[in-house]
Amino acid sequence: MNSIVAGVDVGGRGTSIGFVNREGKIIHQGNIPTLTHQDVDIYIKSLVDYIQQESKVLEPNYKLVGIGVGAPDANCITGTIEHAPNLGWGDYVPFVTKLKIYFPDLPIALSNDANATAVGEKVFGGAKSMKDFVMLTLGTGVGGGLYVNDQLVIGSGGFAAELGHVNVQPEGRECGCGRLGCLEAYCSATGMEQTALELLAHSRKDSLLRGFNINKMGAKDIYEAATQGDQIALETFEKTGEWLGRAIVDFVCIFNPEAVFLFGGPLQAGKVLLEPVERGVNKYLLSMYKGSFKVLRSELSNADAAILGNAAMVWQKLR
Amino acid sequence: MNSIVAGVDVGGRGTSIGFVNREGKIIHQGNIPTLTHQDVDIYIKSLVDYIQQESKVLEPNYKLVGIGVGAPDANCITGTIEHAPNLGWGDYVPFVTKLKIYFPDLPIALSNDANATAVGEKVFGGAKSMKDFVMLTLGTGVGGGLYVNDQLVIGSGGFAAELGHVNVQPEGRECGCGRLGCLEAYCSATGMEQTALELLAHSRKDSLLRGFNINKMGAKDIYEAATQGDQIALETFEKTGEWLGRAIVDFVCIFNPEAVFLFGGPLQAGKVLLEPVERGVNKYLLSMYKGSFKVLRSELSNADAAILGNAAMVWQKLR
Repeated sequence: MNSIVAGVDVGGRGTSIGFVNREGKIIHQGNIPTLTHQDVDIYIKSLVDYIQQESKVLEPNYKLVGIGVGAPDANCITGTIEHAPNLGWGDYVPFVTKLKIYFPDLPIALSNDANATAVGEKVFGGAKSMKDFVMLTLGTGVGGGLYVNDQLVIGSGGFAAELGHVNVQPEGRECGCGRLGCLEAYCSATGMEQTALELLAHSRKDSLLRGFNINKMGAKDIYEAATQGDQIALETFEKTGEWLGRAIVDFVCIFNPEAVFLFGGPLQAGKVLLEPVERGVNKYLLSMYKGSFKVLRSELSNADAAILGNAAMVWQKLR
Repeated sequence: MNSIVAGVDVGGRGTSIGFVNREGKIIHQGNIPTLTHQDVDIYIKSLVDYIQQESKVLEPNYKLVGIGVGAPDANCITGTIEHAPNLGWGDYVPFVTKLKIYFPDLPIALSNDANATAVGEKVFGGAKSMKDFVMLTLGTGVGGGLYVNDQLVIGSGGFAAELGHVNVQPEGRECGCGRLGCLEAYCSATGMEQTALELLAHSRKDSLLRGFNINKMGAKDIYEAATQGDQIALETFEKTGEWLGRAIVDFVCIFNPEAVFLFGGPLQAGKVLLEPVERGVNKYLLSMYKGSFKVLRSELSNADAAILGNAAMVWQKLR
């Protein structure tokens, strides 16, 4: 009988559950509501019911051997979800302990999304043969995951690799964290929208983006304008690449990695983003590191990465 | 018979050799000339002669069990010294291989100074019980050493932890590396001298430092002026602390360490430097890390750190 691991992606809008085999194939998947701001025990019971019911369906061919959960503000050391405002389950939710009651014999891992993405890249993606690499996840925010000496870097308290909150511009843009000038404030999808807005404000150039409602213009619209040669949109990607390049060269100085992987929605722009990143890296890189690493697009698909990464947390332990 | 390890510090001005026991005590030490810009084999022979001769003297009580060498531009993976302009021995010197000819049965380690200082702190200093910490060495330059998951971070090519070359000010001061705005350009002893000069240039305040020849004013003079209440000198430390604080909070986001150690000449200023660093850290720290780590002064003495650190590279392997 084949083994499968349940990868669980706990999001504010819903929870996706996928059953992932050893090779990284999702055999079966589905969704349940996340029940935010309610009693977490009721949510956990519904998650358990779903996993038990679906693994029974799969039972003739597959045996459930572990559960990997990804959630915001997850602490992988303690197995708790801490101060997650969008979930509204309280300050410290001992998520792993609560799941263990129902699955006492299975390994259960809990992690945040960006760490799980790094593990997914290592176990199923482009980093299989790498010992030292950096993962940057670009989305509403910017997250990070790190491998050093072939191990995920979790830090002494479980909160390492908050790479979106390194500073790229002292006294720069306001970040969601309350500080100024974080990478996230420039290179998240939201940051890219702000960059476009700044460029529109400082220039008299015509632009397709001037036709948008300010609060409706998204990173995808900027990409589409860029593919049509829109100067403001192209400059937005150029600046995003320069800021990312700046952060990446610092990570290279710190880790001397084999690769820096980029993941997330903005990567759908392909070389419209990656070429400016390369230019940014080449502009700022310390010469001793030239040719020592690659900037790579993650090999995980956006749609599956969370489930694969969360399942990979367990597969990595089982291997 | 007690075991000892030779710690060798290869510097541009001379080579110090110390024989270090398991507890981190230097039993005996001495110096030889470094013979820069000459045939490296002649230098190595003189180093070998010294080690053999002195260990013979120590032989009734001590047995030499390893050699740890620290040198600029050392690659700890390949055991080579690469492109070290001050040594002038050529592009790639296979230092460990050359030493092995004379000591085929002994473990021999090669490392750069800052990494060795981190290992020294771990084996003999304040980081004995820590698994995750950052070491910043402040001197003519700024160096770095990192422990993650209880291991020294060396990177895929042996050149990780160049922490002096993370950016703290985009398009900022010229750094010796040829780029702009590196931490080293602000927080090395040389950087502190530049800061004082900038402050003197921008202000009409009276200052003891105005009595100095510009190219003779050193970090030590700034410290001495600060202890006498000199405003420009105190402000120099304040700014240095702020830049260090900025870099430290980024390292904390990245590593979630137990401590950040500071080492080197400028630390002789004690709280005149450490208090501004604390203020800088508190000003910029992401709130989730509050109370999660300490900024500590290295417990290694400046005079002995290189020898202890280099010997520690070997002791760590032997333990």
